[in-house]
Amino acid sequence: MKSDLPRLMKERNLDALVIFGPDGFGLANAPFTYFIGDAHVTTGLVIVKRDQTSDSPAKSDIYLVHSPMEREEAAKTGLQLINKASYQLPEIIRQKSGDRLAAEVELLRRVFNDIGVRGRVGFYGADHVNTAFNFLNALIREGVCDVVAEAENDAISAARVTKDAYEADLIRQTCRLTEAVIGATRDFLRAHRVVHETLVTDDGSPLTVADVKRFIRGQAIALGLDMHDCIFAIGRDAGIPHSSGTPGDPIMVGKTIVFDIFPRGPGGYHADITRTWCLGYAPDHVQQAHELVMQAHALAESTFNTSDFTYTFNEAVCDFFEGHGHPTNRQDYATTRGYMHGLGHGFGLSVHEPPGMSLKGLRPDETFQPGTIVCNEPGLYYPDDPRGGWGVRVEDDYWCNLEGQFERLTSFDRDLVVPM
Amino acid sequence: MKSDLPRLMKERNLDALVIFGPDGFGLANAPFTYFIGDAHVTTGLVIVKRDQTSDSPAKSDIYLVHSPMEREEAAKTGLQLINKASYQLPEIIRQKSGDRLAAEVELLRRVFNDIGVRGRVGFYGADHVNTAFNFLNALIREGVCDVVAEAENDAISAARVTKDAYEADLIRQTCRLTEAVIGATRDFLRAHRVVHETLVTDDGSPLTVADVKRFIRGQAIALGLDMHDCIFAIGRDAGIPHSSGTPGDPIMVGKTIVFDIFPRGPGGYHADITRTWCLGYAPDHVQQAHELVMQAHALAESTFNTSDFTYTFNEAVCDFFEGHGHPTNRQDYATTRGYMHGLGHGFGLSVHEPPGMSLKGLRPDETFQPGTIVCNEPGLYYPDDPRGGWGVRVEDDYWCNLEGQFERLTSFDRDLVVPM
Repeated sequence: MKSDLPRLMKERNLDALVIFGPDGFGLANAPFTYFIGDAHVTTGLVIVKRDQTSDSPAKSDIYLVHSPMEREEAAKTGLQLINKASYQLPEIIRQKSGDRLAAEVELLRRVFNDIGVRGRVGFYGADHVNTAFNFLNALIREGVCDVVAEAENDAISAARVTKDAYEADLIRQTCRLTEAVIGATRDFLRAHRVVHETLVTDDGSPLTVADVKRFIRGQAIALGLDMHDCIFAIGRDAGIPHSSGTPGDPIMVGKTIVFDIFPRGPGGYHADITRTWCLGYAPDHVQQAHELVMQAHALAESTFNTSDFTYTFNEAVCDFFEGHGHPTNRQDYATTRGYMHGLGHGFGLSVHEPPGMSLKGLRPDETFQPGTIVCNEPGLYYPDDPRGGWGVRVEDDYWCNLEGQFERLTSFDRDLVVPM
Repeated sequence: MKSDLPRLMKERNLDALVIFGPDGFGLANAPFTYFIGDAHVTTGLVIVKRDQTSDSPAKSDIYLVHSPMEREEAAKTGLQLINKASYQLPEIIRQKSGDRLAAEVELLRRVFNDIGVRGRVGFYGADHVNTAFNFLNALIREGVCDVVAEAENDAISAARVTKDAYEADLIRQTCRLTEAVIGATRDFLRAHRVVHETLVTDDGSPLTVADVKRFIRGQAIALGLDMHDCIFAIGRDAGIPHSSGTPGDPIMVGKTIVFDIFPRGPGGYHADITRTWCLGYAPDHVQQAHELVMQAHALAESTFNTSDFTYTFNEAVCDFFEGHGHPTNRQDYATTRGYMHGLGHGFGLSVHEPPGMSLKGLRPDETFQPGTIVCNEPGLYYPDDPRGGWGVRVEDDYWCNLEGQFERLTSFDRDLVVPM
């Protein structure tokens, strides 16, 4: 969490952190969003300066270099403001004979001088790889600071990997709103007539995945959630974990629907929830698979702790599924049948964040900690089952609170069959 | 445009282009979206291999390294598919004694070997700057290829800077849909009663910026547009170019409203349109400023050509505004009154793309070309006018067609006063 930053900087011997906020990335630039929050700042640079005299996180040690056009939005962040225009970039470009890269480097040097940043400086945030590579190399070449580019478990990621009570509350709010969308969607489906196994609209035409997604989007917007897409995949598509669904597919009874929704809510924080439904009835083999997935889900939930490496929770689920005759990607990494993804992952400002729960060795060894936010999403997938392709996944969200207890943030029922 | 890629690669002596598609960036990673289009591919790697025997762009020379979970979405791209799982990353990590960075480098080396990529390879796309810096340096260290990180006017940007007829048509569609949202929003405002200069809802409470934005979002969604936010700024906020508006502000007659909307539409392409409205009536000084902005707008439009540097169009508008006694950022770079932003910018998969039309020297010297998509958005801003803060901006979009003629893509009226 943010209050860890002074410690994380000290451990890494970093004197400052610079977080890029180039134009065009918006909320996808999670490290930048982490500092600017809900303010509508589309471009800028965050600088966190280590207070050598104290380990306490002082708000006054965080600066935002902003565009003059966004000065009022920048003020909403509560950070110390530095108006980039006051450095007169056009004049610096002239001094550098038109070399814009050299001018941007010089501008940062002057900002560093003005706020007393020197020494080892870590760089973070999103950018285009070619731009970033040139800029960091130019900083090194010009000796502006000692450039540190951390490869794994960097200071910002290490802070973000645990969520404080305020962040957890925002995520809890997003979970509530997301569950309201899921409930409304089920009601919407149930309100349709069934003709020849297919749900039909008032004008008699089949209800399609595109129709349902339009409804979901409308509900999400009405509740203030931000959602580009979701997974609403039926039949064979449900058997491919990240198929988002085929827009023209008709909604039919007796087929599995994997509905995975991960919108952004208050403060920019996501929820990530999946339910699997069969409208009207579920074939026996799907019913059994759903029960097995729910057992795996409960097994995982019961094993969560802050001592074991997170891959062990996934290994336990692999053991369980393999014990029931299902292939896993532990046996065959490229399998397209059975259980072939990780058990879950952290999330927050991004949909996927550390810690992971995947195969041993694929990721750094991680443990849960007080403040961890994580989802639990076992699944089984058989896209090419001759009885008709199908998939089952059930996903709930958890916060390991500051006392180390796991609180489930989601409470929507996991019923497979939706009576029609 | 994409058909320029073989030429652009030849000019830069590049044997291949690699475009990063790391998880979490979505459509914000425009260089990646440029190749995968509407397919729901959330992570992967695009490799464009130069065909040494021909200058024609062969679709078969573009590969997508994809996750096995997204294999069906990947297939929708029409690119040559490489299933990343077939390289057995866990096994490579073991071979590299748990060094995941070394393993990812080795995996790319094997992909390069399999499809015959060698020599000078350019790297593009979005990533976290620390991750990208380490990965590119590891590629150099391991001698996987001759790593090229272009700083300015890189091959992908140079292709994207002009739009072919297909892309222009997608942008035209987005403009139509966006204008429908603008029209519906004006009708929505007009449908409200005015009590004591303030628009009120059915229950007698003031209509707020938040209410209007909720309406705008709903309209955008219903038309299939993707929109995180827009600018709907009234009064003083309208005088700050990138203030997105204060949610609680009441909508009042006689104040300027700057409504700037830039949603994503078909194929992921944006429109970017601004209108300034005064509900009921406009104060004389605002009416005069709007007329002046419209004259600047017409002046700019009449000067557009494919010969002059683009900054000259902005210089002409600076001359014009200064001639009418308004300060500009050419005179004082940090001004917060008058005209203080560029005249316009290219757009497409991103809201801001080259070419720019700003102060001489701030950007590389650019010219319009057949295929240029650009907006024209002069404005005047007086947030601290003692008569009440105000701002005026009017923005329309253009395509320089393949014959070099400028076609206006927007046709919504520019009327200032909205009769109530």
